Amino acid sequence: MKTNLPLDADRLWADVMALADITDPARPYTRRSFTALFLEGRAFLAQRFAEAGLATRIDTAGNLIGRIEGQNPELGVIAIGSHSDTVPSGGRFDGIAGVATGLEIARALRQSGTRLDHTLEIIDFLAEEPSEYGLSCVGSRGMTGSLDGRMLALSEPGGETLRDALRRVGGDPDRLIEAKRHDIRAFLELHIEQGIVLEQRSIEIGVVTSIVGIRRLEILFEGEADHAGTTPMALRHDALVAAANTVVAIRRTAEQLAAEGADYFVATVGILTVEPSASNIVPGRCRLVVDARTTNPALTARFVDTIDRESAGFAAAARVTRARFATLSDGPPVVCDAELRAALRQGAHDLGVGEMDLPSGAGHDAAFMSRIAPSAMVFVPCRNGKSHAPEEWADREALAAGAAVIYQAVKALDQSLPRSRDGD
Amino acid sequence: MKTNLPLDADRLWADVMALADITDPARPYTRRSFTALFLEGRAFLAQRFAEAGLATRIDTAGNLIGRIEGQNPELGVIAIGSHSDTVPSGGRFDGIAGVATGLEIARALRQSGTRLDHTLEIIDFLAEEPSEYGLSCVGSRGMTGSLDGRMLALSEPGGETLRDALRRVGGDPDRLIEAKRHDIRAFLELHIEQGIVLEQRSIEIGVVTSIVGIRRLEILFEGEADHAGTTPMALRHDALVAAANTVVAIRRTAEQLAAEGADYFVATVGILTVEPSASNIVPGRCRLVVDARTTNPALTARFVDTIDRESAGFAAAARVTRARFATLSDGPPVVCDAELRAALRQGAHDLGVGEMDLPSGAGHDAAFMSRIAPSAMVFVPCRNGKSHAPEEWADREALAAGAAVIYQAVKALDQSLPRSRDGD
Repeated sequence: MKTNLPLDADRLWADVMALADITDPARPYTRRSFTALFLEGRAFLAQRFAEAGLATRIDTAGNLIGRIEGQNPELGVIAIGSHSDTVPSGGRFDGIAGVATGLEIARALRQSGTRLDHTLEIIDFLAEEPSEYGLSCVGSRGMTGSLDGRMLALSEPGGETLRDALRRVGGDPDRLIEAKRHDIRAFLELHIEQGIVLEQRSIEIGVVTSIVGIRRLEILFEGEADHAGTTPMALRHDALVAAANTVVAIRRTAEQLAAEGADYFVATVGILTVEPSASNIVPGRCRLVVDARTTNPALTARFVDTIDRESAGFAAAARVTRARFATLSDGPPVVCDAELRAALRQGAHDLGVGEMDLPSGAGHDAAFMSRIAPSAMVFVPCRNGKSHAPEEWADREALAAGAAVIYQAVKALDQSLPRSRDGD
Repeated sequence: MKTNLPLDADRLWADVMALADITDPARPYTRRSFTALFLEGRAFLAQRFAEAGLATRIDTAGNLIGRIEGQNPELGVIAIGSHSDTVPSGGRFDGIAGVATGLEIARALRQSGTRLDHTLEIIDFLAEEPSEYGLSCVGSRGMTGSLDGRMLALSEPGGETLRDALRRVGGDPDRLIEAKRHDIRAFLELHIEQGIVLEQRSIEIGVVTSIVGIRRLEILFEGEADHAGTTPMALRHDALVAAANTVVAIRRTAEQLAAEGADYFVATVGILTVEPSASNIVPGRCRLVVDARTTNPALTARFVDTIDRESAGFAAAARVTRARFATLSDGPPVVCDAELRAALRQGAHDLGVGEMDLPSGAGHDAAFMSRIAPSAMVFVPCRNGKSHAPEEWADREALAAGAAVIYQAVKALDQSLPRSRDGD
C-alpha cells in the first residue's frame, strides 16, 4: 500500500489494543454488553471521541455516537461503525476494529483540516453479539426501528429485562422512536473476516457483496430406546441412524449447492443431541439444529426441500418418527449497496490495495443498517480464520489498509452521493 | 401348559410384586444395590427363604444364599439364581423374577416332600446391575474368583469404595477366596428376555444358547471449531460429518453381519457427543461409543476391522483427525451348557410349553457362573421388549411356565448329572 493519507496506523492499533486490555482478566478477551467492563470500554471510547473533537452522545437505543457536523449538514450523514462488545473469551478485533477505524478516520480528517460536506458519525452499536438477554444487534435494531416490545421484555438469567438494561447503559426504551434514523446517506463498516478466504488467497481486503440470510431448522427424530443387546438389528427404531443419514445428506447437499458457484451457500449441523445417551441403549430420540446461510434465498429453498424429503425418507427407513421439521428463524440476505462497493473498490485501486468481492457468512450491524441506508463493508484478513476466540488476530498493516480504503471511500462519497433525496 | 406340579403361580407372582413394592416411591421401580432399600428387599427375601425352610447366609462376596441340603451332599450343588437389585427407574421383573423362581421351586419341592440327591441353593447375586461403583455382576464375579483388588478399589461419587460397601452389606472383601465355589454342578437362571423375539413369535419360553460377548469401542474425531457462516464448505474440518458417516457405516455393517444368520450380531452407537455444540459453530470434536455384541467373536473382529478402515477413510474425507479408535472393554461370549439346555428343552416338552433356542443379547450372572459350573438360562417373554423401565412386564402365566420348566429340569438333572467329577 502506498499512501500519504493522514491516517496513523500505530494510533489505530493502539486504540484496538487499549480496548482489548479492558477485559475480564480471567478470560481474555471478554467485555460483554451491559457489564461494568463494557461501560468501562465505552468510557474509554467516549474520551477518545471527545479528544478527537467529536460531539459525543448515547442515543435512546444505547448506541455511542461521535459526530462532526458537515459543512452542508442538510446533505445528511455518512456513518462508520461497528461494536465494542465481545463474546465470552472472544477476540481483540471483532467489532472493535471497526469502531477504532471510524475513530481514526475522524481524527485524521480533523487533524488534516479536512471538513466533509456531509456530517460524519462514528457509531459503537450496542450489544451486537448475543447477550445474556438472548438478542444480538440490539443497537442497530434500535437505530433501524427493528427493536420491538417483545424483544425489550426478554430477560437475562438474573431476571433483569432488556428494557431495564438498556436504560442502565444510557438508552431510553420509552423513546426508542427517537433512535430511528432517516438522515444516514451511507453506512460503512470494517470488520475482521472471521473466515480464511482472504488469508488463503493473500488478498489484502474484501469488499463485501452481501450479508447472508440465515435459516435455522430443528429436526427431531423419535424412535424407541431399546436394549442395545437384546434388540436385533431388524427390530430397531434407532433415532440416531436417521439423524446420522440426515447429517450426511446435509453435507452432500450443501457441497453441491456451494459448488454451483454463483452464490454463497453453507450449511452446518452444529447441534446434535442423543437421548438417553447410554452405551447400551438404542437412541430413542435425536435432535439436530441446522444452520443454512446463503446470499440467494432460492438456494436455501432448494436445500430445505431436499433435506425435508430426504430426512423423511431416512426416518421411514429407520422406522422412526420425524416428530419435527421446523424453521426456528429465517432472516433474509442483504445485498450491499452497489455505489458504496464501487467507492470502496476504487479506493483500494487508488491506494494499490488488493481487493476481492466476498460475501459475509456472518451477520453484522450493517445488515440492519441496510434497512435504512445504503450500506457496505470491508473485511480484513483473519489469521487462520479464527474468531470469537482469544487467538483471533489481524495484522496492523491489514487494519491500516482497510481503514485507508474506507477513508478514501468516505472522501469520494462525500462528493458523489446524491445531493438531494426524496422521502424520509 | 398342562401341569400337576406343586408350583404355585400365584405365590410366585406375589413374591415378585412384594419385592417390586420395596422401591423408591418417587421413581418406581428403584432398588439399587448397596442402598437401604436394597437391604430392605434382602431382609424380605431372607425371611421368605427362612419360611421356605432354607438355611440362609450371605457369602463373603455379598451374595444372599438359601440352601437345602441334598440326600447325597457329596454330589454337589444345583443352584438357581439371579439378582434383586434394579437400575434407577427400572422394572419389576429383571432379576427379581429369577430369584423368586428359585424360591418357589425350593418351596414347592419341600412342601411336596421331594428331597433332591443334590444340595439345592437359591442365590440372590449382589449388584448385577451397574452400580454407583462402576461395576456390574459384583456377586457373580466374587463367586467365580473374578473380583479383584482393582475392582474393590472403585468408589462411588461420595467416596465410599466398593470394598467398604461390600463389607457394609454383609460380605468380607478380605476373605473373598471363600466365596469362590468348586461344588456347583449346575446353575440355572430364569430372566425376562428384555427383547421382543419371544413375543413376536408367540413362543412361551426361550432356552438361551449363549450369552453375547460385548466389545465397546470409543472413536474420537477432532476437526476445527470454525464459524458456521464464514467457513466455506470446501475449507471445513467438520468432526460430526466423519462421525455421522461412521454411524451410518456401523449400522450397515451390523445389518450385513446379522443377516449372515448363523450367529447373533448387533452393534449400536448409543453415545455421540458434539463439541462445542452451538448452532453457529462447525463441530470441532465428536465422540462415539460403539457397543458390539455377538455369539461369535469372529464377527466382531470383522466388524471392528471394517469400522476401523471406514472411519479412517471418513476422517480423511472430512479432513479431520481420528484421534482415537480404542477398545474400552471386551468380554467374550459364553456358550450355555448343552446338557442343561437339553434338560430345559425336555422339561418344556414334557409340560407342553413352547420353546425356542435364543441367544442372550444382554449380560447375566450366568455368564460369570459358566466359568465355574455348567450353566443355562430360561427367558420369559417381555411385553414390547421393554426392560429397565417402569413399564417392564411379564405375564403371570409366562413366569409360571418358565419356573415349571426349570423345576422339571432340576428334577431331571438331579438324576442325570454325572455322579462323580474329577478335579476341584
